[in-house]
Amino acid sequence: MSKTEPCFLTAAEAAAAIRAGTLTSETLIRSCLERIAARDPAVRAWLHVDPELAIRQARERDKRPPTGPLHGIPFGVKDIMDTADMPTTYNSPDWQGHRPTRDAACVSIVRHSGAIILGKTDTVEFAYNSRKAASRNPYNLAHTPGGSSSGSGAAVGDFQVQCAFGTQTAGSHIRPASFNGIYAIKPSWGTVSREGVHMISAILDTVGWYGRSVDDLILGAQAFRLPAIETLTAPAAAGLRIGYCETPFWAKAEAGAKAAMAASVERLRRAGAIIEEIVLPAHFADLSEAHTMIMFGDGGVALYDEYLRHRSTLHPELRLTVEGGRGVTPEKLVAAYDLADACRKEFDAIASGYDAVLAPASTGEAPKGLHTVGDWIFNGLWTLLHTPCVAIPAVLGEQRLPVGIQLVGPRLSDARLLSVARTLQTVIDTGAEERAAILRAA
Amino acid sequence: MSKTEPCFLTAAEAAAAIRAGTLTSETLIRSCLERIAARDPAVRAWLHVDPELAIRQARERDKRPPTGPLHGIPFGVKDIMDTADMPTTYNSPDWQGHRPTRDAACVSIVRHSGAIILGKTDTVEFAYNSRKAASRNPYNLAHTPGGSSSGSGAAVGDFQVQCAFGTQTAGSHIRPASFNGIYAIKPSWGTVSREGVHMISAILDTVGWYGRSVDDLILGAQAFRLPAIETLTAPAAAGLRIGYCETPFWAKAEAGAKAAMAASVERLRRAGAIIEEIVLPAHFADLSEAHTMIMFGDGGVALYDEYLRHRSTLHPELRLTVEGGRGVTPEKLVAAYDLADACRKEFDAIASGYDAVLAPASTGEAPKGLHTVGDWIFNGLWTLLHTPCVAIPAVLGEQRLPVGIQLVGPRLSDARLLSVARTLQTVIDTGAEERAAILRAA
Repeated sequence: MSKTEPCFLTAAEAAAAIRAGTLTSETLIRSCLERIAARDPAVRAWLHVDPELAIRQARERDKRPPTGPLHGIPFGVKDIMDTADMPTTYNSPDWQGHRPTRDAACVSIVRHSGAIILGKTDTVEFAYNSRKAASRNPYNLAHTPGGSSSGSGAAVGDFQVQCAFGTQTAGSHIRPASFNGIYAIKPSWGTVSREGVHMISAILDTVGWYGRSVDDLILGAQAFRLPAIETLTAPAAAGLRIGYCETPFWAKAEAGAKAAMAASVERLRRAGAIIEEIVLPAHFADLSEAHTMIMFGDGGVALYDEYLRHRSTLHPELRLTVEGGRGVTPEKLVAAYDLADACRKEFDAIASGYDAVLAPASTGEAPKGLHTVGDWIFNGLWTLLHTPCVAIPAVLGEQRLPVGIQLVGPRLSDARLLSVARTLQTVIDTGAEERAAILRAA
Repeated sequence: MSKTEPCFLTAAEAAAAIRAGTLTSETLIRSCLERIAARDPAVRAWLHVDPELAIRQARERDKRPPTGPLHGIPFGVKDIMDTADMPTTYNSPDWQGHRPTRDAACVSIVRHSGAIILGKTDTVEFAYNSRKAASRNPYNLAHTPGGSSSGSGAAVGDFQVQCAFGTQTAGSHIRPASFNGIYAIKPSWGTVSREGVHMISAILDTVGWYGRSVDDLILGAQAFRLPAIETLTAPAAAGLRIGYCETPFWAKAEAGAKAAMAASVERLRRAGAIIEEIVLPAHFADLSEAHTMIMFGDGGVALYDEYLRHRSTLHPELRLTVEGGRGVTPEKLVAAYDLADACRKEFDAIASGYDAVLAPASTGEAPKGLHTVGDWIFNGLWTLLHTPCVAIPAVLGEQRLPVGIQLVGPRLSDARLLSVARTLQTVIDTGAEERAAILRAA
């Protein structure tokens, strides 16, 4: 496959080329489908792809002038999201062939912005701690692409599709971005509808999307009208104040996360940014336990219907959660809510003093094996705190697998965070060509 | 219709009779269907009823021993909840005939507990401030039954069905209970899955159910495994400590709410309960504005997909919300979240000093006309505070329409609140026979 194959373009590049008339959506889609045909038997990112439907829709897009930011751009959809024209299985053995009759709101919204749904991506069952996706890390097939948004992360990372949806209840969206060398936004909680997305926790579940540049993420942010998205700016890197935040869980950082954070700091300093360390208040250390308490408590409620419907075939972890085996009590659950409620306001006040907060996106490189999707320790607190997070690739680790960092901001500051991230992309992510070269040769 | 018609039984009475073999589910369902045929052309509680399906399912139930608390009991389902065997229209002109392929989790769970879904009840469009239900108040057809759970409230009130689902984002569940002389529980936020229920706000939307006694509500609480529901007690009324809470919005109380609160206090005192006044901290007065800010902000996100799909036919109020006409800003939204977060913990501490908190359930009797569903001022704060609320009928007002009160408890104290409510039902609700007599003659 040549370097100039359209599948290797970023979404923003492809969208601009389609707008300029130098690329058709059909050519782009066909290039992605070829890449999928060549690579996906090994990567296994997709549970369902409908080439004919995608090509037909691309031709329709090509007949009309662009009406939305994602005009003609292919999108992958995590298979916990309803689609009216494709099966929605949640990667559950009990829901094979299930066909909803309407799109999830997020799917419908990107369609209205011109995106073409290429297919459904593999996921951890119900995006909850159970049956793993069959997807593999495109950089090394023996490693996980992370999860639960496994297929979406792998597909975007492997240049099979420009954009894809993920969701995050613990670390399911940002961590696969780190593992697959791609960009991700987990928007502020509450800014993207979850209608038609299988629920685990109302206070945690967040829909996000992947791309291969900050500009790709911005196309989605425009489609979803994130708060103040019309006020995007282009600040200079020099003089930006960046809060360096190891979080209370730094002891869990492996060589990969340490390298990604250290390299980012060095590059930021060289670009003239001002780095100041943030030490979060001591009680933030309890957010990890609070997060899991809420996830298990809410999970037990969310999965009770599955338990009643499919008890005999239900994954043991789901059964354990529903049967109360995770030690959740009303007292612990209320205490967890209260801690999170208090910390949200505190973190906003801290983060407001910086242009962005720099934090680890994963503990390190993707673990070996498909039995794990990695540790959510560096993600759960931000999910619970409802902050916007933008993942940016930073380094290749010792095993030649990508590791990213994330930029975090106060709640509803998504537009400002994307503005800063766009400037810092060129500072932090120095390895985009190297990543493309590795996967082009794969 | 004779006094002993099964449709006039409470759910708990009917369930016990079915269990004892003195009543069949089929007889019960047929009685409800007769009542519907006689009354619903005037009351208009239902958007869809499927008599044949219900009778067939009742016969199936009658062949088997009861396996769940709701065995053989008819249930109405608010038409913002997905049903696999009936249309789901959200009372929207744009979704007529829409047929989901799976049940909402709450529908599936009561089916597993033995309930029979009689049909879909009318609702304010998307349960959000827009196109009103056609339903009328069974006590006076010129008056609203309240909303947005209009049909569910009217159907249970009019003895057409024993139980029905409602939802509450502002006052949509408890207020219709007050207006229709029935019982309701709005469980603690987070204890009942909202999978398959049309969303407005993740932090507000709450699924609840109606019945004609506290024992009816308990059947549902058992089906949903509300926290600690296995620890129900039967406290004596004498010595119970009840916090009398007018809320900061008492100036909005009309004669009906004042009469309901005063009568409740008098009856409670006579029964030996200890009444102490609770004056909420001053900043609780801002919860009403915080609540509407969150409802409008979240509503704008939730309804954006509808706006893109059906802009030209969309109700003006929905369009206004999506187009930002409600004055929501990121700053105001965060401030609203933060106030609610702080007040939740404070209210729990206050409420923990009492066996229950007594508060108004509505501003008074149901308003005249179907252009309104009444004021949510006495409900929005409890929705936002995530407290369990149990509505109990208290008086008939000057217009001979019912008015209830609600008992409120700290988060996740649902079982304790139901225990107290069961004791207080016989103290507070002295008019059940009078209500039945009025509607039997209607």
